[in-house]
Amino acid sequence: MEQTKKKKCVVRFEPSGLKIEVPAGTVLLEAANKTGIYLSSICGGDGYCGKCKIVIDQGQFQSKPTALLTPNEMRENVVLACQTKVLSDMTVTVPRFHTLETSQILMDSDAHRFSDIGGEVEAGVFKFDPLVQKLYFEMAPPSVQDHTADHERLYLAIRERIDAPVMQTGFRILQKLSSMLQSCGYKVTVTIGRRGETTEVIEVEAGNHSDRNFAVAVDIGTTTVVAHLVDLTKATTIDTEATYNSQINFGDDYIRRIMYAEENNAFDEMQNRIVGDVNNLIVTLATRQKIDLQDITTVICAGNTAMVHFLLNLDARRIRREPYVASANFIPPIRAAKAGIKINERGLLYCLPSVAAYVGGDIVAGVLTTRIYTKKGISLFADIGTNGEVVLGNRDWLVCASSSAGPAFEGSGVKHGMRAGAGAIEKLSISDDGSIEFKAIGDTKPIGICGSGLLDTLAELFTNGIIDRTGRFKANGQVGGTAILAVSSRTGSPCHISEGEDGLQFRLVEGGDGHQEIVITQADINNLIRSKAGVFAAIRVLMESTQIKTKDLEGVYLAGGFGNFLNVAHAVTIGMLPDVPLEKIHFVGNTSIAGAKTVLLSRKALKAAEKIAQSMTYFDLMSHPKYMDEFVRANFLPHTDLSLFPSVKLATEKI
Amino acid sequence: MEQTKKKKCVVRFEPSGLKIEVPAGTVLLEAANKTGIYLSSICGGDGYCGKCKIVIDQGQFQSKPTALLTPNEMRENVVLACQTKVLSDMTVTVPRFHTLETSQILMDSDAHRFSDIGGEVEAGVFKFDPLVQKLYFEMAPPSVQDHTADHERLYLAIRERIDAPVMQTGFRILQKLSSMLQSCGYKVTVTIGRRGETTEVIEVEAGNHSDRNFAVAVDIGTTTVVAHLVDLTKATTIDTEATYNSQINFGDDYIRRIMYAEENNAFDEMQNRIVGDVNNLIVTLATRQKIDLQDITTVICAGNTAMVHFLLNLDARRIRREPYVASANFIPPIRAAKAGIKINERGLLYCLPSVAAYVGGDIVAGVLTTRIYTKKGISLFADIGTNGEVVLGNRDWLVCASSSAGPAFEGSGVKHGMRAGAGAIEKLSISDDGSIEFKAIGDTKPIGICGSGLLDTLAELFTNGIIDRTGRFKANGQVGGTAILAVSSRTGSPCHISEGEDGLQFRLVEGGDGHQEIVITQADINNLIRSKAGVFAAIRVLMESTQIKTKDLEGVYLAGGFGNFLNVAHAVTIGMLPDVPLEKIHFVGNTSIAGAKTVLLSRKALKAAEKIAQSMTYFDLMSHPKYMDEFVRANFLPHTDLSLFPSVKLATEKI
Repeated sequence: MEQTKKKKCVVRFEPSGLKIEVPAGTVLLEAANKTGIYLSSICGGDGYCGKCKIVIDQGQFQSKPTALLTPNEMRENVVLACQTKVLSDMTVTVPRFHTLETSQILMDSDAHRFSDIGGEVEAGVFKFDPLVQKLYFEMAPPSVQDHTADHERLYLAIRERIDAPVMQTGFRILQKLSSMLQSCGYKVTVTIGRRGETTEVIEVEAGNHSDRNFAVAVDIGTTTVVAHLVDLTKATTIDTEATYNSQINFGDDYIRRIMYAEENNAFDEMQNRIVGDVNNLIVTLATRQKIDLQDITTVICAGNTAMVHFLLNLDARRIRREPYVASANFIPPIRAAKAGIKINERGLLYCLPSVAAYVGGDIVAGVLTTRIYTKKGISLFADIGTNGEVVLGNRDWLVCASSSAGPAFEGSGVKHGMRAGAGAIEKLSISDDGSIEFKAIGDTKPIGICGSGLLDTLAELFTNGIIDRTGRFKANGQVGGTAILAVSSRTGSPCHISEGEDGLQFRLVEGGDGHQEIVITQADINNLIRSKAGVFAAIRVLMESTQIKTKDLEGVYLAGGFGNFLNVAHAVTIGMLPDVPLEKIHFVGNTSIAGAKTVLLSRKALKAAEKIAQSMTYFDLMSHPKYMDEFVRANFLPHTDLSLFPSVKLATEKI
Repeated sequence: MEQTKKKKCVVRFEPSGLKIEVPAGTVLLEAANKTGIYLSSICGGDGYCGKCKIVIDQGQFQSKPTALLTPNEMRENVVLACQTKVLSDMTVTVPRFHTLETSQILMDSDAHRFSDIGGEVEAGVFKFDPLVQKLYFEMAPPSVQDHTADHERLYLAIRERIDAPVMQTGFRILQKLSSMLQSCGYKVTVTIGRRGETTEVIEVEAGNHSDRNFAVAVDIGTTTVVAHLVDLTKATTIDTEATYNSQINFGDDYIRRIMYAEENNAFDEMQNRIVGDVNNLIVTLATRQKIDLQDITTVICAGNTAMVHFLLNLDARRIRREPYVASANFIPPIRAAKAGIKINERGLLYCLPSVAAYVGGDIVAGVLTTRIYTKKGISLFADIGTNGEVVLGNRDWLVCASSSAGPAFEGSGVKHGMRAGAGAIEKLSISDDGSIEFKAIGDTKPIGICGSGLLDTLAELFTNGIIDRTGRFKANGQVGGTAILAVSSRTGSPCHISEGEDGLQFRLVEGGDGHQEIVITQADINNLIRSKAGVFAAIRVLMESTQIKTKDLEGVYLAGGFGNFLNVAHAVTIGMLPDVPLEKIHFVGNTSIAGAKTVLLSRKALKAAEKIAQSMTYFDLMSHPKYMDEFVRANFLPHTDLSLFPSVKLATEKI
């Protein structure tokens, strides 16, 4: 036994061909991590998410039994990497859905949104004026006629170029400044960063490097973390990447994570996890785009208040208990390295300001991006993530609230749910013959369903009468056999409902022929309805409190990492959004990252974000007398009160 | 021999009774340093300044022969500590002139100046508004009704009390803020520091410590370093201390020190020396006043540009060569710890801004203190240190220049010269019977002469006709014997000129009877005349360049560490200052430290200092065509051109 443990085994990962030598007994997931190979994993290696699937081509291994693999997968030597130990030299194949390159496709199809944002900055909504800039100067050296000291000479040059009434220089920069200027004949690239009203000389380098200035904008969600790499010199997004938040095995939502951290004294660990995730994303983006980490000068984060607290290891304990307050809603820019983020060691980390303990910078980013704070008419904004935050208002007033929606629409807590990455079903419909039509991101074989696909699924099951208003399957065949036939009440076509491990389930994609079977279970449906009910209840409380009627709403904005195409009609059908004319509803995608990028590119946008955060009025739903009632009433499709959804009533009556 | 070296010896220092065990062979100066006993030493232990005298009471020692001890001293077992090795257990007595406590006396007699400054701040010339403040807050904790986050809560509280539109909080403070506030019920002392337009939250502590906030103002001279301990809560100076600049054995003036540092790659060493001196002063003051170093939150330095560069290890090389520029004239406030200064680890270090490579923050402090920048009439300001800097102007314009006066008036380069500390002759006159009347600081036995005493001596020797207009002794007895009689041409009384080791010398204090013989040599006189000539030549260049006549001068301010009482008439008699009516001449003492303290206590004063530094026009004497001529013409008593000194001509003609 001892001998076996000491044995070294070489693991080769296909198709990359990367190899690593590890001691026998090493867990395969760990070996992959050490090789720098990314495997999806929600649970962090605890064996219950079933995402880290990998194929053993040859070699000996030991795998724990798991219910998360189908008999087909087991026959094809698919294992969970986190549950498998290496016992000999091995060759394994990493399925394509893990590989980072595929998300390139998401970026391309998402490209129009990036250019929109660049466009917004260029169009003068916000002046292009990035938080961190690199400026190249060819200064006249001092002479007998011009005694100006080097430090003041530099300030004069900077102030000729940009508006910087209040300036600051770090001691180390000051110390090296003179010899550096002399060494390069006063031709230097100066990195300047805006810290509130203060402009800091972050770095001074010999020669012209002003064309190499990059930033990473990060949307830190409770379940998913999304990063965009931005070229600050051109105001363009050049690549994107996403991962699951690896804190997830400490709890699905941040309240549980705070409890866990408190009980286990694990706030440091919580920070390490999220900082690790952010660093992984940054390194992945930089490596792929062949960018030196030194040339990344800025990281900007938008996230809910708890995530920002975790990221910076601020005291998050009172976020979950009375009086429910943050340590800080407004975080001053800090040296990114101080938080452990691995970009240029003098680069800056910005966080978008929060409103309250339960309404964070991601929501401020959403308000900024949708520009509802500038409009005369009343708008409604809902951001569906692990929490469902809702903002209502216009240029004169803004109210907001947060409901614990749960991560169902992010693919977590749903059997075949996944984030909106390659292979995720993002569009789905039940055709008249009962067959399922779908589109997977990247047009690959589907491996799961993301938020927009789940929304479609729920709406289609409802409008086809396959589930009833409580969300229960209306199985009209016999229960107890392997397949129970259901019939669409809309088309009369048969559909596949079966008895699975978790009770009844509806088959979306048939397994075999290289396809993975994809189903939606009764538990999944219940989770999704709870999520939408939380959001709608929050909307109701805000509308009732401000006496805004559905007809008063001039625009409804739905945000979240759903996928690229979201059928907004379905959001009304299931009763997530109020029943307004469809042309008023806009799917705006991930406004958290969009807002973060806008702020990154313009100081004025940051000021606007600060003003939004300051002026929004927060409604605490937990202590609100009507919230629970509204939540219970919304736990129907679309709602217990059909008069609130006349268009849905009309449509379903037709069936 | 080896055995002897390994032997341990106990050295006991009287009168303190402090003891230390050192290996046999240890140099006594080193033993004293290790014991924390301060011995005067200019040369840093090289055995040529003769200041570190100590008395051996008992024990064996080995001392190198030296010409710096009189036969009397040798008989009384006086040795130079730096030239003496410990060979056995010993008891030694530290002469009183070394001891720090005696400088208390200087402080007391200086007290009116401190209160003047406090008064100036209080009187509303500058509003009392210290650069670093401790504020105590009893904040309302957050509640369900008041969700304001802790960080914003703190900002609100601060902004209720003080003007702070732009605020900044360090990451570490932010991280600990919440748990700290909770632990003490939101009753905290906040240390805030002004960094340009930005107000930084430097520290947050539980409970009320707002009454413990101290600062040290330091005048960093080329030869002497003076420190004042200031209570920032009361705007009072509570103690002072001074030492020689221990860089002195790398060169008398800073040009030589820069050369030395360049040739020997010793800029780090140069910084270590001056930082060590400043730290020694701070520790001495804090220990004596029983103040915790943690309660010292601020250090403010006024010094010439080179000294500030040495202190911060900025590139000083081009201060001594074309184009004669500084790395920085305006130094942003930095964390004192970053420069190695040992106060509160988050405390701030401020440096008064410089004008140019040869006109530093000490001169800006002088202009600030004398307020010549606010006056309608033309003033002249001269600061006599190792350099003689001169400023001319009024509220509309200011010009300045610097001459290498040399450290003669600071007691260095003069046989019995010393800084203005206990035992220094600060006042001297030759009475009608030829006897010398003098006053020593602290009313102790005299041990040397400080600047004001040297000025008196030079003037008295001249007006008594003992030296001629070139400064040469007019010995009218026989040269070559032990005593050469000189006769005062004013009173006809005999005076003691003798042939010493360095040529002719004039005896000021007779040796024996517990008194040390104190003389002034021909070399001393030549040094002093060169010093005053440099200053006067600089004054002439500025006046000629701006076409200001002597009669146009409404005020003449003489600054420097001369002593407490300076006979300004003598400054005219020897031709150091222009011949204006005496009531126009004001001795203003150490304006460098006075200005530093004013700035310390008022942000407005700092702004005024910055404006002064920015607006002053610098004249480079080294490249000025007329300076050398003026210097040669001024190398007479009072001057080659007697028409410039009508009052002196009149007085000396009477003799």
